[in-house]
Amino acid sequence: MYTISDVITFLKQDTDTIPQTVDQLYNGNLASPVQRIGVCFMPTIHVIKRALDLQIDLLVCHEGLFYSHQQQNVYKDDWLSHEKKKIIAHSPIAIYRYHDYAHRGKQDFITEGLLHTLKWNKLVTHQTPVASIVQLPKQTLQELIKYVQTQLHIHTSRYIGNLNLEVSKVACLVGYRGGGQTAIPQFVQEDVDVVLYGEGPEWETPEWIRDRNEIGAGKAGIILGHIESEEPGMEYITMLLQNKFPTLSITHIASNNIIQTYCAGKEM
Amino acid sequence: MYTISDVITFLKQDTDTIPQTVDQLYNGNLASPVQRIGVCFMPTIHVIKRALDLQIDLLVCHEGLFYSHQQQNVYKDDWLSHEKKKIIAHSPIAIYRYHDYAHRGKQDFITEGLLHTLKWNKLVTHQTPVASIVQLPKQTLQELIKYVQTQLHIHTSRYIGNLNLEVSKVACLVGYRGGGQTAIPQFVQEDVDVVLYGEGPEWETPEWIRDRNEIGAGKAGIILGHIESEEPGMEYITMLLQNKFPTLSITHIASNNIIQTYCAGKEM
Repeated sequence: MYTISDVITFLKQDTDTIPQTVDQLYNGNLASPVQRIGVCFMPTIHVIKRALDLQIDLLVCHEGLFYSHQQQNVYKDDWLSHEKKKIIAHSPIAIYRYHDYAHRGKQDFITEGLLHTLKWNKLVTHQTPVASIVQLPKQTLQELIKYVQTQLHIHTSRYIGNLNLEVSKVACLVGYRGGGQTAIPQFVQEDVDVVLYGEGPEWETPEWIRDRNEIGAGKAGIILGHIESEEPGMEYITMLLQNKFPTLSITHIASNNIIQTYCAGKEM
Repeated sequence: MYTISDVITFLKQDTDTIPQTVDQLYNGNLASPVQRIGVCFMPTIHVIKRALDLQIDLLVCHEGLFYSHQQQNVYKDDWLSHEKKKIIAHSPIAIYRYHDYAHRGKQDFITEGLLHTLKWNKLVTHQTPVASIVQLPKQTLQELIKYVQTQLHIHTSRYIGNLNLEVSKVACLVGYRGGGQTAIPQFVQEDVDVVLYGEGPEWETPEWIRDRNEIGAGKAGIILGHIESEEPGMEYITMLLQNKFPTLSITHIASNNIIQTYCAGKEM
């Protein structure tokens, strides 16, 4: 029989201790036995209800429960946060936020999952602290976007650059690593053609690319969206758990994207 | 004859002194005379070249020159930042970043400009420290998105919520005020139906809306994009300057958006 502690110990095994972390166990205790594990990116109320239907004991999630990166309750007067707490408190589900330890092990499992879904694992030339650098066959930016959308099962992405630009060297940055301080060095130090990222402030990386294209060789960016860039990582972690604990029931529960696009008079 | 100092004094006149600010004059000095003023949201290299063509002395911009909110040069080894500095140093254009003082006067000119373009000035019921609350005739979310897109001359917006939702009370938050700590209180304390914002972390406000829609009345969000939400403010400031200095040539130079959308096999 396995306990919550066994599962968390496995998930943290390749990572040095992180003194300050957002990772924590909520509504459970380490000694409790585990039969059914759910794995998700975002612990929405919908996902928690689905976990209840599936009689899950332990829900492993990536982002926080209360709409903030820090687990602190920043919305003290918020009826919604109170209701969500009640739903969880009245449920038998322990929730483990697996964020920092997922990113900072020998491998970044979240990046690894994205590369796995994109079938780029064998095309990685090297890692930087925040990105994986991938060397692809030469193709246009448009071909690259189409390929990424097909592999990730998404039909809308934002991008910067000329769709006819020939590209081959790509830096993959998951989640919020699209900000200037993480993404721009991939151009400056690694000389990639494209940064592919989850999200980041719009006046940083996109504006660097705009100026660079104004006075030099073509560069590009693909903005996947936060969930789109990290949900594959949680699917990957589901697989790792299935391999480690073959006698347990382990299910990935898709959070799905919530942000839609209204484009030229149509819902996309 | 007017000097740069006269222009800046006017722009700051309704704002208490802000001790720590990103606002600053770059490549110019206060005593220099001004004949032609350019006003832009983003001082891209393209905009600076256009300002040179227009023989502009003073370019008033909102965001920074070097891809970071703080004016510090965070990309020391970056060829592009060096080149941009050279272009500016070899030009006669003084550049004044007008950010904090634009937002924090008796009026937030950037928000005011957005309301002006949306023709909502007379529908504002009250202001919160970061938002204007607007009471509109009852309409669907889809109708609201279409109206906003028409007024702002944009054809793509991201949104959260049901397009058939009936809405009337809207909080307008420009720029990066779409984060949870600024946008979520508009729902909790002001009970708005919709937050309309520039940008913000995707796991905060959108996820609050998703959970709220799972267990209660419908709420919605419209994510305009940073430039889309703030460029109207710089057009508004152009008009204020034209009224104050009728003998000077004062031109708005559009930065235009750089982020495009690739949607269902098409460039949008």
